[in-house]
Amino acid sequence: MVKITDTTFRDAHQSLMATRLRTEDMLPIAEKMDQVGFYSMEVWGGATFDSCIRYLNEDPWERLRDLKKKIPNTPLQMLLRGQNLVGYRHYPDDIAEKFIKKSIENGIDIIRIFDALNDIRNVEFSIKMTKKYGAEAQGAISYTTSPVHTTEQFIELAKKFEELGCDSISIKDMAGLLKPYDAKELIGRLKEEISVPIDLHSHCTAGIAPLTYMTSVEAGIDILNCAMSPLSMGTSQPPVESIVEALKGTKYDTGLDLVLLTEIRDYFDEIRSKYKYLISSISERVDARILRYQVPGGMLSNLVSQLKEQGALDKFEEVLNEIPRVRKDLGYPPLVTPTSQIVGTQAVMNVLTEERYKIITNEVSNYLKGYYGKSPAPISKDLLKRALQDGEKQITCRPADLLEPEYELRKKEAMDKRIVSKEEDILTYAIYPQIAVKFLRGEAKAEAIPQEKDISKFME
Amino acid sequence: MVKITDTTFRDAHQSLMATRLRTEDMLPIAEKMDQVGFYSMEVWGGATFDSCIRYLNEDPWERLRDLKKKIPNTPLQMLLRGQNLVGYRHYPDDIAEKFIKKSIENGIDIIRIFDALNDIRNVEFSIKMTKKYGAEAQGAISYTTSPVHTTEQFIELAKKFEELGCDSISIKDMAGLLKPYDAKELIGRLKEEISVPIDLHSHCTAGIAPLTYMTSVEAGIDILNCAMSPLSMGTSQPPVESIVEALKGTKYDTGLDLVLLTEIRDYFDEIRSKYKYLISSISERVDARILRYQVPGGMLSNLVSQLKEQGALDKFEEVLNEIPRVRKDLGYPPLVTPTSQIVGTQAVMNVLTEERYKIITNEVSNYLKGYYGKSPAPISKDLLKRALQDGEKQITCRPADLLEPEYELRKKEAMDKRIVSKEEDILTYAIYPQIAVKFLRGEAKAEAIPQEKDISKFME
Ligand SMILES: [Co+2]
Ligand SMILES: [Co+2]
Repeated sequence: MVKITDTTFRDAHQSLMATRLRTEDMLPIAEKMDQVGFYSMEVWGGATFDSCIRYLNEDPWERLRDLKKKIPNTPLQMLLRGQNLVGYRHYPDDIAEKFIKKSIENGIDIIRIFDALNDIRNVEFSIKMTKKYGAEAQGAISYTTSPVHTTEQFIELAKKFEELGCDSISIKDMAGLLKPYDAKELIGRLKEEISVPIDLHSHCTAGIAPLTYMTSVEAGIDILNCAMSPLSMGTSQPPVESIVEALKGTKYDTGLDLVLLTEIRDYFDEIRSKYKYLISSISERVDARILRYQVPGGMLSNLVSQLKEQGALDKFEEVLNEIPRVRKDLGYPPLVTPTSQIVGTQAVMNVLTEERYKIITNEVSNYLKGYYGKSPAPISKDLLKRALQDGEKQITCRPADLLEPEYELRKKEAMDKRIVSKEEDILTYAIYPQIAVKFLRGEAKAEAIPQEKDISKFME
Repeated sequence: MVKITDTTFRDAHQSLMATRLRTEDMLPIAEKMDQVGFYSMEVWGGATFDSCIRYLNEDPWERLRDLKKKIPNTPLQMLLRGQNLVGYRHYPDDIAEKFIKKSIENGIDIIRIFDALNDIRNVEFSIKMTKKYGAEAQGAISYTTSPVHTTEQFIELAKKFEELGCDSISIKDMAGLLKPYDAKELIGRLKEEISVPIDLHSHCTAGIAPLTYMTSVEAGIDILNCAMSPLSMGTSQPPVESIVEALKGTKYDTGLDLVLLTEIRDYFDEIRSKYKYLISSISERVDARILRYQVPGGMLSNLVSQLKEQGALDKFEEVLNEIPRVRKDLGYPPLVTPTSQIVGTQAVMNVLTEERYKIITNEVSNYLKGYYGKSPAPISKDLLKRALQDGEKQITCRPADLLEPEYELRKKEAMDKRIVSKEEDILTYAIYPQIAVKFLRGEAKAEAIPQEKDISKFME
């Protein structure tokens, strides 16, 4: 029996419509979804926290509590960026502990935890805190391919997750590059070595995920991540209903009810119409270029924008060829936030300045110095030498070990600003100090849902 | 090694953009596609013939010759509706023979031949003529599910195809309902019983085809039908590039070159933009309702239009429930042109008149009398009685046996109308007597490619 994690309220709208789905459009269908019998519903974390306070004038904590009320039976799941929590930088442990504690108190049952570099030190603390406060920890492997990434390494990482007490292991294939037979091998090996359930999270961007889901099922996958069909496919997950029907009557039968799912589907069909101008036609479709360039979809559109701004779109091909070289110099990081931006921007620089590393971006410099964690393979020594100032050294400790506790300071700041009406507000402020102030003061306005095609501003 | 039939020039644009792709948008990329190494390219037949003369003011025969010039190495394939040829009624054998002969003379190498009822008598003549004039005949099973359809019946049909000399057998899953493990069983059995190559043709409408392609590969499928990614998915086929990449490096490797395919992909990306207002957002997406109602996508939108016209959209659910009952009364025909229309319209009648079969449509009446061929299961006797007028009897012979030769008559008519400048024009006229006259007189105008969203009129 294969179980389904529904991603509609988190990854699906994050992938297809810039994370703009509002709580008021989730609640009317939440009770019905709770009846389906999903293994879990991913409803929080990732970019949803940021989007709530930045664009929707919504309190993410309230969203969570409201959803919990309507979804009492299905475990609620969130995505946590390891030590980055739901932000874009490393936070100190005291913030991380409080954030995880409050997420669980407000309704989260399962926390999926990943690090862009698969550096276990960046997720260890979060896993421990998740267990400490009574939720399930799901350790997520950031899947990528490179000359140094092997199945064995992913197995080793999974073992570390299990040793740390993770209740399940996820293969997080953010670019949708995991191929059917590679999945079969990886999952087969995981099933041999790991005793907790194995989860597969992929994206249809390259058109491969549905095929990979099929071989994964045969390799013994326990949980598949899917989205309700109107918000599925393209850059999102494979459709729930199709997977349910495809496996019906086999030993993998999900046991979910297609009649109920069809009712839910009809609801999301309307939701999709309501938000249709947020959905770029690019994100709806298979982007086969990913297959050739091995660059995730979001990163491709990013590059196009950057080059357009510089009037250098003719350098696109050159930049695409430069990316694997930069990635190699940096020790083959998986391309996912924030490493995709770090690698992409440096590749653009290298091409536009007509001299490789004539300019080294701050982010690459910090990356080289070890502030994002340990790279999968050694980084280029020449490059490191150029990045280090006089007397500087590469750090080898866990990056967050260098961070001072921040909670009390942030608490005081927030109190002084009179933006605290509940403990969670301190965390909102601690993670997003700039935008949280406006939001918590009640000065933020919800962005309107676009009523015509003007998606340019929503493209990352 | 799995081979790929590319459907971009026939089924892909028929499924996604109402069969409106113009020859001038095919030719610039044709030579490059010829270099890929496809098993075949489906470029003709189906609705393309009708669309050429009805909407595009293009001569379908010229299209075929032009494509042949640019594609000398890859076998060109067409879809033939058995005795219906490329039209919507049974044509007499003399027309069928001439049409098949001329199709082959003008460049067709492989003819895929199907009948909506899987009545072998409706395809036998076409298969013989295809062989007689030196092309490859591919016998196609119209796949469906019903209480009377079994794997064994499909195997029997395939055996008959093989006995008739078919060079390959296709599973034609027009509604995209073939499930992964049903495919595995069916293909496994076909591979045991049949010695010619087995082809799978499906549609992504229900979101299942990519999964089914995966199990089919493992079951030993020889040929998969795919479309170039910008015209893939939704109601079309799975994407060529994704299948190629998914199988790369395995024993099923297609051997096709992703670099070349990406160049071709970029071309079709522009073509897609050019035709974007022809692409209904419905046909781009997974329609999970198909899974519940087992009704093909095109038929669903048809029903919605019919009910809207009658101001009876509130009866939609009732009609959906009536369809399986009508289908049962008619002996479970596969739902494909023309049976999908026949069943759908009668179901609407049954609901709107508030009495089942108070009105029996002409088409249902003819169907009951045997004029479309033999139904998969016996039809309702009560219903047959009501359809037969005094003294009328159900026919049991091959429907086309009742048709007089027509070619000489049509030739004379066409000559009298002065619309014949080559032999093929007589066939164009014989198959589409109404619209051919205007077209052949040069009075037809090519429809403009829509420049804004007004897809209602293109929805079937
Ligand atoms: Co994701
Ligand atoms: Co088709």
